[in-house]
Amino acid sequence: MKNIGILLSGRGSNFEAIARSIATGDVPARIAVVISNRRDAAGLARAQARGLDARFIPSQGKTREAFDRDVIAALEACKVDYVCLAGFMRVLGSCFVQKFSGRILNIHPSLLPAFPGIDAQKQALESGVKFTGCTVHLVDEGIDTGPIVCQAVVPVLESDTVESLSARILEQEHRIYSEALKLLVEGRIEVDGRRVKIKETVTSDE
Amino acid sequence: MKNIGILLSGRGSNFEAIARSIATGDVPARIAVVISNRRDAAGLARAQARGLDARFIPSQGKTREAFDRDVIAALEACKVDYVCLAGFMRVLGSCFVQKFSGRILNIHPSLLPAFPGIDAQKQALESGVKFTGCTVHLVDEGIDTGPIVCQAVVPVLESDTVESLSARILEQEHRIYSEALKLLVEGRIEVDGRRVKIKETVTSDE
Repeated sequence: MKNIGILLSGRGSNFEAIARSIATGDVPARIAVVISNRRDAAGLARAQARGLDARFIPSQGKTREAFDRDVIAALEACKVDYVCLAGFMRVLGSCFVQKFSGRILNIHPSLLPAFPGIDAQKQALESGVKFTGCTVHLVDEGIDTGPIVCQAVVPVLESDTVESLSARILEQEHRIYSEALKLLVEGRIEVDGRRVKIKETVTSDE
Repeated sequence: MKNIGILLSGRGSNFEAIARSIATGDVPARIAVVISNRRDAAGLARAQARGLDARFIPSQGKTREAFDRDVIAALEACKVDYVCLAGFMRVLGSCFVQKFSGRILNIHPSLLPAFPGIDAQKQALESGVKFTGCTVHLVDEGIDTGPIVCQAVVPVLESDTVESLSARILEQEHRIYSEALKLLVEGRIEVDGRRVKIKETVTSDE
């Protein structure tokens, strides 16, 4: 059974979706630790409520390197195999990314490469696109640039506000994050250049 | 009945899709002229075969301004209300765009703003996206930047080549180009910032 570490900074709704998929057996893994860089993150309280190892590791006032080092130490102490960023509002340094290379997932509320960075739903709405969506990708050293594992499409309605659009995208985020994590822990992801191919055969120990 | 001018440089498959939609009565308009900047464009021969006014206006060796002026003169002589770019491989100057402001459509084989410019399908394939598509937009002075009228989504398959992906996108191009042109000639397009809204009520003379 692979160990997952979750990093979050906010409400942690994607963390909860992952926790549900693990509880139902859809994703064969266990959540070894949930780490927040914000003490008041609702996701941290939710993790505690689920009886998980939930840790606050402050980022404020630390260099990126020092914070990354603290998080790496916690993940290694918990024997984490894979890391899921679930609304984690810090950019990870190259040391972190290299340490867990090919083993970090992030979710972004747009069809990347469109609308990277913050306020992706607002960017989409203001740009006038008719479709947007969400993307789960492996994390590399860029911002929202890593190889794409799963995407889902969401139509933009004329009546949409940032809130209504974000809510419809979030439903799809919850679905594809578990889908992507399942592929990752089952060792079925193969990166070829920027393209992610999914191996048909399930290999249980890769 | 509104007059359409078509500009093309190649095979003109989007021109043919528009011609079919007009023939079936789906798009209430007539094609007043088809103009190509390449004498050997297959689309020009197809237009002649349909008995349309098909003109070759050379661009080679001309300044952009001189070429644009020649095309504007032909469009005005044919009393063209709306212009459809259908695989037209020239960038129109600001004089042209202003002359037909809000009345020029272009189609692009990606979900803009992703993958503007040339080889959009190849860009999509190499970037590893799981979905791409096509976009019909009003033409402004940028390249593939104008307000989006219609989009269609096309999944990218692991087995896709540039050719197979382009073919599946092209099917959708044919569908949405007519859809967007119908909205335009019926006066149902309202531009609000970068967002295009579709008026529910059909107004026949706007």
